[in-house]
Amino acid sequence: SIDGQRLWDSLMAMAEIGPSPNGGSHRLALTEEDAAGRRLLIEWAEALGLSLRVDGVGNMFLRRAGQRDDLDPIAVGSHLDTQPKGGRFDGVLGVLAGLEALRTLDDHGVVTQRPLELVVWTNEEGSRFAPAMVASGTYAGAFSVDSTLARRDRDGVTLGEALAATGFEGDLPVGEPRLAGFLELHIEQGPVLEENHEAIGVVTGVQGMRWFDVTLRGQSSHAGPTPMSYRRDALAAAARLIDRLQAHALADDSGHTKVTCGTLEIDAPSRNVVPGEVRLTIDLRHIDEAELDALEARFEDELVAAGEAFGVAAQGERIWASPVVAFDDACIAAVEAAAKARGLSYRRMLSGAGHDAVYVSRVAPTSMIFIPCRDGISHNEAEYSSPEQCALGAQVLCDALIELADK
Amino acid sequence: SIDGQRLWDSLMAMAEIGPSPNGGSHRLALTEEDAAGRRLLIEWAEALGLSLRVDGVGNMFLRRAGQRDDLDPIAVGSHLDTQPKGGRFDGVLGVLAGLEALRTLDDHGVVTQRPLELVVWTNEEGSRFAPAMVASGTYAGAFSVDSTLARRDRDGVTLGEALAATGFEGDLPVGEPRLAGFLELHIEQGPVLEENHEAIGVVTGVQGMRWFDVTLRGQSSHAGPTPMSYRRDALAAAARLIDRLQAHALADDSGHTKVTCGTLEIDAPSRNVVPGEVRLTIDLRHIDEAELDALEARFEDELVAAGEAFGVAAQGERIWASPVVAFDDACIAAVEAAAKARGLSYRRMLSGAGHDAVYVSRVAPTSMIFIPCRDGISHNEAEYSSPEQCALGAQVLCDALIELADK
Ligand SMILES: NC(=O)NCCC(=O)O
Ligand SMILES: NC(=O)NCCC(=O)O
Repeated sequence: SIDGQRLWDSLMAMAEIGPSPNGGSHRLALTEEDAAGRRLLIEWAEALGLSLRVDGVGNMFLRRAGQRDDLDPIAVGSHLDTQPKGGRFDGVLGVLAGLEALRTLDDHGVVTQRPLELVVWTNEEGSRFAPAMVASGTYAGAFSVDSTLARRDRDGVTLGEALAATGFEGDLPVGEPRLAGFLELHIEQGPVLEENHEAIGVVTGVQGMRWFDVTLRGQSSHAGPTPMSYRRDALAAAARLIDRLQAHALADDSGHTKVTCGTLEIDAPSRNVVPGEVRLTIDLRHIDEAELDALEARFEDELVAAGEAFGVAAQGERIWASPVVAFDDACIAAVEAAAKARGLSYRRMLSGAGHDAVYVSRVAPTSMIFIPCRDGISHNEAEYSSPEQCALGAQVLCDALIELADK
Repeated sequence: SIDGQRLWDSLMAMAEIGPSPNGGSHRLALTEEDAAGRRLLIEWAEALGLSLRVDGVGNMFLRRAGQRDDLDPIAVGSHLDTQPKGGRFDGVLGVLAGLEALRTLDDHGVVTQRPLELVVWTNEEGSRFAPAMVASGTYAGAFSVDSTLARRDRDGVTLGEALAATGFEGDLPVGEPRLAGFLELHIEQGPVLEENHEAIGVVTGVQGMRWFDVTLRGQSSHAGPTPMSYRRDALAAAARLIDRLQAHALADDSGHTKVTCGTLEIDAPSRNVVPGEVRLTIDLRHIDEAELDALEARFEDELVAAGEAFGVAAQGERIWASPVVAFDDACIAAVEAAAKARGLSYRRMLSGAGHDAVYVSRVAPTSMIFIPCRDGISHNEAEYSSPEQCALGAQVLCDALIELADK
C-alpha cells in the first residue's frame, strides 16, 4: 500500500513553492518558481536513486531500473506548472503520486520487469505559452521542436529563452524515451465524481478543444461627443460576441457545448475613450468532433455578426485544435481492474480538460485516473481534494502501474 | 489678426513632446512627458514676459499685466495632458491659442484694461487620475485639495506624489487667482460642425456625465470540465451588461443617451480559466439631468440583471457626477459677436465632452469656442483640425478675450 500521509506531505511541501495569496499556487511554466518546484522533485527523486534526463523542450524523465532494461519503460507523471492563480493539485498530484508509487516499490524492495519513468511535462497549462500540453505534444510529434521553442509569452519571451534561463534545456532528443505505456492521475476538475460519491474516474478519453485568437479593430473616439450611431466600438463587438456564445452554449441541454472567453484586453484603455481595438481568446470544447465543427462554425458566424453590428473589423484565428481522444483499452482495463480490486466506487468517464496524456496517447498506450475535487472547482486557488481522495487515486495508479510494468 | 502659422508651428512643436507611434501624443497627466510640455510652454511664455504662478494642485497661471492690475483678470487656457493614445489638439489648442492671442497683443503693443491669465489645468483627461477635470474642479471648490492630492493612478501613485516628482507643486493657494472671466477654445471632438460646414461652435453649455467603477465577482474555474450551468463567469456578466447598455443607448432615437465602457480588466486572465473577477468602468452622459437619472437607474437594473443571470456578485459605485452646465450669457454673447464680426459661419451648441470650463464656470463667468475636427474624431491619434480651422478659432478667442478684458 502507498503511504497517504507521505504523499500529502509532498503535495503540501510543493505548494510552498510559489504560494499564491489565497492558498493556491503560482508557478507559471518556466519561471523561477517552476524551476524551484522541479529542483525539489529532483532532490526527492535522487534520494530514491532515480536518474534524470531532460529533453530539448524541458520534459524531465526520472528513471527507475527494471529487471529487463532492454524493454521500453512504463511511465507515470503529469506537470508541475500552474495557472496564474492555480491550485495545489492540478498536475502536481499526478507527478507526486507517481513519486509515491516509486517510493512504495522501494519500501517493499519491488523491482518491476520493465523500467519505470516518472515524467514531468513542460508548460501543460498553456497559460504562459499557448497552446496547452505543448511539450508533451512535441514529444509525441504533434509540434516541431523549433516551433515549440519559438512560442512566445505575453511579454514576447520565447519558450526556448525561458528554458535556457531556468537551466532546464536538456540534451535528450525530443521523442525519447519511447514508452510502453503511460498513466496519469489527475483531479477531475469538474463535479461528476463528487456529486456521484465515487472515488475513482476511469478515464476513457478526452473531449476535443480548439483555441482562437480574436482581434476586433474599430476606431477609438471620445465617450462624450461621439454619437452612438457613429461609433466603431471594439469592446461592444466583443461583448456581443461573448454574450451570444454564452447563450448558445447555455441553450445546449446536453451540456456538452462549452465556450469560454478567458482573456480580453483593450488597447490603450481609458474611461472616456470608446475602445478602438480589443484582443480576446476563445476556448471551444465538445465531446463530439462533428459537433465541435458546428460550434466553430457558429463562433465564426457570431464573430462576423458582432463585427458587422458595431462597424468593427473582426478577425479570428484558430491557433490550436486538439481532437477528441480515446485512450488505450488495455490501459483503461488496468485502471478499472485496480479500482475494482480495491473495492472502490468508480465510473468510466471522459475528461473535460486536456492533459499530457492526450498527446502521449498518440505514441504509447495511455490512460488516466481521476479523483474527485471539492465542488468540482479547479483553476482556482480554492482547488481541493482530501488526503484520503488523493491516497486512493495514488493507490490505483500504483496498482495499475505494477500491472502494466510486469506484463 | 492672430498669426495662424505661428500657432500651427507651436502646436506641432508641442506634439513632438511624447509623440505616439501613429502621429498622436502620449502625455499622461504629471508624467515626465507632461512636465516637458509644461516646460516648453513656460519657455515661450517667459519670452513674452508672462509671470508664472503654480497652485497646490499644479494648475499653472501665466500672467500678463493690464492697465488696471487692481481688477480681476480674464483667463484663457485649457490642458496639456493627453489620453494614452491621444491627439495633437485636444486641450493643447486651447492653451496655445491662448498663447497666440497674447503674442498677438504683444505684436501690436496692446495692453488690455484687465490683466490676463494663460491657464494650464492639471489632469483634465481623467485617464491617469479619475475623475476628469479634477484640478479645475479643485480650483472651483468642487473637490478638496487633500482629496485631489490623494487620488491614485492604476499603479497606486497618488496625484500628490506625481506632482512632487515632476516639480509642479506650487505654493499659490488653490482657488487663486479669482477670475473675472474664462474662455476656453477646444476642438469639438464630435461631427456636428464639420457636417454642417460651420467654422465655429458657440458653446452654451455641457452635457452631464457620471462615472462608475464596477466590480463583478464570480468564481474562476476550468474552461473544460466545468459545466456551463455551474459557472459563475464574471466576464459573461460584464458582456451582458455592456451589450444591454449599448442596445439601450442605440435605441434612443434622439441620440442623447451615451454609454461607454472604456476599461475592463480580468483578474489573473488565462485562456482556459473561466474569469472569476472583472473590473470595468462605465461612462454615462445625457444633456438632460432627469434623463441622466433615468439612465443611471437603467444601468443599475442591467447590472443587477447581469449579475443574477450569471451567478455573479455585481457592485457598482458612482465615483463622479458632473451635472449639466449652462455657460454665462455675456461670455457666450462675446464669442458669438466675435464670430459674427469676422463673418464666420457658426452655431450655438452644447459640448458632449467635459472641459475645465465646466468647473471654472462655477466661480467665474465662462464660455467656450469649438472648431471642427476631421470626421469628428478625438481621443484618437488621428485627431486633426487644419491650420485654417485652428487659426479661425484662435482669432475668435482673441477677439472675445479683448472684448471681455476691456469691458
Ligand atoms: N488539466 C488542465 O488543467 N489542463 C489545461 C489544459 C486545458 O485547457 O484543458
Ligand atoms: N475634452 C476632453 O476630452 N475631456 C475629457 C473629459 C471627458 O471625458 O469629457
